[in-house]
Amino acid sequence: MIEQHETQIRVRYQETDPMGFLHHAQYLTYFEIGRTEWLRAAGGNYREMEEQGRLIVVVKAECRYRRPAQYDDLLTVRTTVKRVTAVKIEHEYLLLRDDERLAVGHITLAVIDRSGKVCRVPEWMERGEVDSG
Amino acid sequence: MIEQHETQIRVRYQETDPMGFLHHAQYLTYFEIGRTEWLRAAGGNYREMEEQGRLIVVVKAECRYRRPAQYDDLLTVRTTVKRVTAVKIEHEYLLLRDDERLAVGHITLAVIDRSGKVCRVPEWMERGEVDSG
Amino acid sequence: MIEQHETQIRVRYQETDPMGFLHHAQYLTYFEIGRTEWLRAAGGNYREMEEQGRLIVVVKAECRYRRPAQYDDLLTVRTTVKRVTAVKIEHEYLLLRDDERLAVGHITLAVIDRSGKVCRVPEWMERGEVDSG
Amino acid sequence: MIEQHETQIRVRYQETDPMGFLHHAQYLTYFEIGRTEWLRAAGGNYREMEEQGRLIVVVKAECRYRRPAQYDDLLTVRTTVKRVTAVKIEHEYLLLRDDERLAVGHITLAVIDRSGKVCRVPEWMERGEVDSG
Repeated sequence: MIEQHETQIRVRYQETDPMGFLHHAQYLTYFEIGRTEWLRAAGGNYREMEEQGRLIVVVKAECRYRRPAQYDDLLTVRTTVKRVTAVKIEHEYLLLRDDERLAVGHITLAVIDRSGKVCRVPEWMERGEVDSG
Repeated sequence: MIEQHETQIRVRYQETDPMGFLHHAQYLTYFEIGRTEWLRAAGGNYREMEEQGRLIVVVKAECRYRRPAQYDDLLTVRTTVKRVTAVKIEHEYLLLRDDERLAVGHITLAVIDRSGKVCRVPEWMERGEVDSG
Repeated sequence: MIEQHETQIRVRYQETDPMGFLHHAQYLTYFEIGRTEWLRAAGGNYREMEEQGRLIVVVKAECRYRRPAQYDDLLTVRTTVKRVTAVKIEHEYLLLRDDERLAVGHITLAVIDRSGKVCRVPEWMERGEVDSG
Repeated sequence: MIEQHETQIRVRYQETDPMGFLHHAQYLTYFEIGRTEWLRAAGGNYREMEEQGRLIVVVKAECRYRRPAQYDDLLTVRTTVKRVTAVKIEHEYLLLRDDERLAVGHITLAVIDRSGKVCRVPEWMERGEVDSG
């Protein structure tokens, strides 16, 4: 299991606001890209999961904003698996511009089926130290 | 059949760009809101159509931008049915700030089923002068 | 000072994802609309504040998602001022579909000038029980 | 002057709609990314242009949608300079999935200053055959 993954994202014009800053809601989308690419690097594929009727939903999201990102900045999202239980996955996301920390996020995910029922987190997503969460 | 409908939209902070203007891609979303509300006023409901397996897709979109809209502007989208054939619906959209014309758009829609096959436009959407288009 | 304000938002097609749910990042934008309308109801105007060189930035955002919102749902954002200090404003946001609680958010804001320097929160924004926070 | 440029974009979850398709308004944003990268490849930089008080605005946009793009598709935007006059730039954009043409767009741009006045297109943007258009 890959416990950390980095992916690069360039800030789009459409994503910035009249202050010239990346809009704060957009950080959550960048984190989502981070976990999609983490999943791909780990051998998974979210599109296939969804086709098989397993959906990942966000249960809780939190972000602390330290410094603004600007249009055309080339940023790095560093995704770290913090904790996986039978029913939850917790990630930490660092948004970096070179070595400068712009924001840090924590997202808790759950897996549901098409009827909305909570499912067990796929085994391959669990790390060794799974607890009963 | 209602041939013209107006709906109001206030420009959101997140939708404006570093110039302080409503981002140009966002106009297409405003037009989409215009036709959703036109459909509702006409007694239809797009959510129900979709639940019944009929999807509206955009075949062609065109927009001419005259003057910029800005954050917090209260705008009007005036949706006009221009032409309905057995397989296409054409709308015109005027984006207005009071009497000032900010943009004019033309969108051509088609109806498909879940397999992607083109379907006949629902009868209630057709006006009197339907042609074989 | 108005300590609570409600505003209505209809979920747009463009804001929903392949699960048919309102995308989780979009909740932060809905909360932003909630505070813009709270500000307007309180006699303020964010566009004017910005023209006068006072910018509101998000320092921290947190959201707990309980039930999904869907396309075309008519939702209510209930914005509550939780705490105002000399340098921070804390809001709570409830996202409701009729009486059903879909999500609850907490956002901490600061006021900066165009150079990025933190400014004192405008007096009219402070409630009676301002502390030195 | 570079007259054609290609850039790759992966479709984000947040950009797709309940049909599972890339939302039609998003195509204009993909074209914008195409011209930003064309500009960079040509030795220009839009962020710097803007800092120098020269803004590019969209005067007209048009897109024909042939086949839908889906979540996680890796697409190519092929940006072609079609015509540059003293006051306008016209681009064509092809959106491709491998060799399959998903959409074709045409965007007309103008350059303005901060007061909104139309400016001459920068010389380096003009190709040889500039006319008085």
